[in-house]
Amino acid sequence: MTTAAPEAPAPTLDFVFHPRSIAIAGVSAKEGMAFGGSGFVSSLQEIGFPGPIFLIHPTAPAIRGIKCYPSLLDIPDDVDYVISSVNARHVPQLLEDCIARNVKVLHLFTAGFTETGDIERAKMEQAVVARAREAGIRLIGPNCMGLYVPESRLAMMNGQIPEPGPVGMVSQSGMNAGEFVRYALPRGLRFSKVISFGNGADLKAADFFDYLADDPGTEIIAAYLEGIQDGPRLSQAIRRAGAVKPLAILKSGRTEAGSRAANSHTASLAGSLQVFDGLCRQAGAIRVESLEALIDVTVAFRFVKRLAGPNIVVVGGGGGASVLAADDLAAAGLSVPPLLPETQAELARVTHEAGTSIRNPIDTTSLWEEKGFASTLMPAATAPNIDAVLYHTGFGGGMSRRGDVRSRLRSQAEELAQVQAKSGKPVVIAIRPSSDAEGFDHTQEFEDLCWRNDLAVFPGIKQAGDALGRLIQWQRMHNL
Amino acid sequence: MTTAAPEAPAPTLDFVFHPRSIAIAGVSAKEGMAFGGSGFVSSLQEIGFPGPIFLIHPTAPAIRGIKCYPSLLDIPDDVDYVISSVNARHVPQLLEDCIARNVKVLHLFTAGFTETGDIERAKMEQAVVARAREAGIRLIGPNCMGLYVPESRLAMMNGQIPEPGPVGMVSQSGMNAGEFVRYALPRGLRFSKVISFGNGADLKAADFFDYLADDPGTEIIAAYLEGIQDGPRLSQAIRRAGAVKPLAILKSGRTEAGSRAANSHTASLAGSLQVFDGLCRQAGAIRVESLEALIDVTVAFRFVKRLAGPNIVVVGGGGGASVLAADDLAAAGLSVPPLLPETQAELARVTHEAGTSIRNPIDTTSLWEEKGFASTLMPAATAPNIDAVLYHTGFGGGMSRRGDVRSRLRSQAEELAQVQAKSGKPVVIAIRPSSDAEGFDHTQEFEDLCWRNDLAVFPGIKQAGDALGRLIQWQRMHNL
Repeated sequence: MTTAAPEAPAPTLDFVFHPRSIAIAGVSAKEGMAFGGSGFVSSLQEIGFPGPIFLIHPTAPAIRGIKCYPSLLDIPDDVDYVISSVNARHVPQLLEDCIARNVKVLHLFTAGFTETGDIERAKMEQAVVARAREAGIRLIGPNCMGLYVPESRLAMMNGQIPEPGPVGMVSQSGMNAGEFVRYALPRGLRFSKVISFGNGADLKAADFFDYLADDPGTEIIAAYLEGIQDGPRLSQAIRRAGAVKPLAILKSGRTEAGSRAANSHTASLAGSLQVFDGLCRQAGAIRVESLEALIDVTVAFRFVKRLAGPNIVVVGGGGGASVLAADDLAAAGLSVPPLLPETQAELARVTHEAGTSIRNPIDTTSLWEEKGFASTLMPAATAPNIDAVLYHTGFGGGMSRRGDVRSRLRSQAEELAQVQAKSGKPVVIAIRPSSDAEGFDHTQEFEDLCWRNDLAVFPGIKQAGDALGRLIQWQRMHNL
Repeated sequence: MTTAAPEAPAPTLDFVFHPRSIAIAGVSAKEGMAFGGSGFVSSLQEIGFPGPIFLIHPTAPAIRGIKCYPSLLDIPDDVDYVISSVNARHVPQLLEDCIARNVKVLHLFTAGFTETGDIERAKMEQAVVARAREAGIRLIGPNCMGLYVPESRLAMMNGQIPEPGPVGMVSQSGMNAGEFVRYALPRGLRFSKVISFGNGADLKAADFFDYLADDPGTEIIAAYLEGIQDGPRLSQAIRRAGAVKPLAILKSGRTEAGSRAANSHTASLAGSLQVFDGLCRQAGAIRVESLEALIDVTVAFRFVKRLAGPNIVVVGGGGGASVLAADDLAAAGLSVPPLLPETQAELARVTHEAGTSIRNPIDTTSLWEEKGFASTLMPAATAPNIDAVLYHTGFGGGMSRRGDVRSRLRSQAEELAQVQAKSGKPVVIAIRPSSDAEGFDHTQEFEDLCWRNDLAVFPGIKQAGDALGRLIQWQRMHNL
């Protein structure tokens, strides 16, 4: 015991996200493990962590070409960051080694602490935290996947790319952090920091909200929380983050069954949903009820940014889809107003059958004709009683076999982007999920083309409507 | 004018679904059209309609290898069923030709009638109906895609397979009928009759509900309705169908915007949602609010059939997913009760770390070990306080690269089916959507293996929970 560390967080946690070297304890010598210690080695190699990675293994000389050491004490170089995948009972010794080697951060992937419900294991967790604090070492976890930080080339799972972006994410669950990233990347979201913090024994949600609120690389914050640790501090951190950046939170444990599951998972006390809901409203944060909705709101924050009003023009093929679209948008608090006579007259000039499908929703065959696409969309977008365009489409079922699909997708995405730029109004894309492999490929390609053209993409009309409705709700809370 | 046809429906509409020959009017001579008249030719050829198909075209000698005739009157053989893709103004003459040739059914794909809002066109629709009725010809449509009847090898779109099954579907929208079939096929739903009836000028929803209620090939009925035509008769038909077969209805036009869109689409008057909701409750029918939910409920009717109670054990990897699962199921009116001490003791014997992840939800590493899969599922399924098992999984993100995925999927599906058979309790599968092409393939393959093993498959935990909750609601309405 040298100096007593303060209970309060360090003024900045920046060092946590920028380690120069990493050691991993508890890597299996067996091939083909994608999870645990070996999973971290594989993820860090894949994303291209630029510093040295050291492995700790009692007997193996090397794993995946990386030299192993029997103990942290045997590593000849400085180690900033240690990932623990050892059994919980070995963690106290690993911590002592970390202290001896001046390690700054210990990420405990290791589970088997308070979340087991076992009193002895809860005491062990408390002892580890106390010892780390007095030694000035910060802990991430236990029972978590740790960090994905593109700018530092840190990854918690495979498939996490080095390209950074403006979204910061805080998640009590490693799986939900991983799923968020996995589903968000094809939608064009890129990340500053993604943090899975599990039990939050030392560093807690509040620390990460505070950090992301100050982090210049983070413009939007998304969070998955299971429990309320240190309520007053968490409230303060959420209010602070919500005041300076768009913030969306998925809070689980909203039912008694979910609350019990949260306790089993990360030893979380879920608390009252009403209280949490009230906190979000005060903080100007959006609360959602699914991981999918969390991604959708983040896409709206990132690509739509602002809606001047709730009036949407719906454009796309299919009468049944149009009717359901109008219902879904209205249910999300948006409006699908009839277009004015002058707008309808303009649309009638480009459509064969000047009928009712140009009132709003718009569903005319002119969309599928050469040059008809933009000349149908443009009058709709520039209509005086319209604030945004929702274009819906889908691939598969043989429809995409017509003509050169690739070039059609490219020109459509470009024309949609031009409509957005020229009209000055958001153009939002809804793509129905595909039912066949060819359609899946086209969906992914169009999704990619759209976000690269700065268009918000959603996996369906209802999802787009819900996200736009929440964006308006957020604007109202912030008087925007 | 020969004899006056009765206003009441014929005692059976069976002849409508079993034509021996078809003529299509309004087929484009241009290649590559996947929609309209040529689309019907292509769909009927693909599904293998066994009778002759005649094409009506003013000048072309043949299209797609099928001989063309200038008029219906020139066709040398009997024609049971005519599909009209001609412009609305040519429909009266086509109808006269149908009368002259003793055609039984005229399917008007042709749009441009009452749904345009134009009084002259509404009058034309009424005149066509009156003339058809007095001649004893039944009309499907106008403004619809018509029929998909596997046993008769009739199809309205490409990709509709000849294998028949127990689901009957009635849809006011052709697109929604097509999308229902397209998304339902990979989930294992097969069809007796699918009917897109558009404006319902002659044959209406009530006629089709009556028919499907009596049809021995139909065990489950799903419907998409936009409007209420002849309210008392429709109410009676829904009550009659709902009394004898599981019935689920998606009713659009539930908002003012949706109601206006429904009127533009199929000239429908949506009516009050409250009234319709009350009707469904009286009829013992399930009302849903999306096409996806309509498919999910139909899957529950088809594969789960009956739940003894609301108590679900949730099994699958991922703590975060488990917590959200518990929330979603509880919100759907189901229960995720803690397993009894004896069940937990049994599970503890097969898991390494006997912790909290065997309480329910179950999330243990034993699921991924050889022989661990069934020995984890079986105690959970046979637990005395459990009525059904929900197993959740997902593919992609590199996870599926481990080992021989194909054989693992096959053995998992078989073991899940054995658990269902041995325990006598439904085993329900939730597969998260994939984010990459390889995962999409594995998802489709596992989906296929599951339903062929008589397991209900859903695209997510929430969707599975909502469908099971509705199944219980349906059972309660019928005192089952």
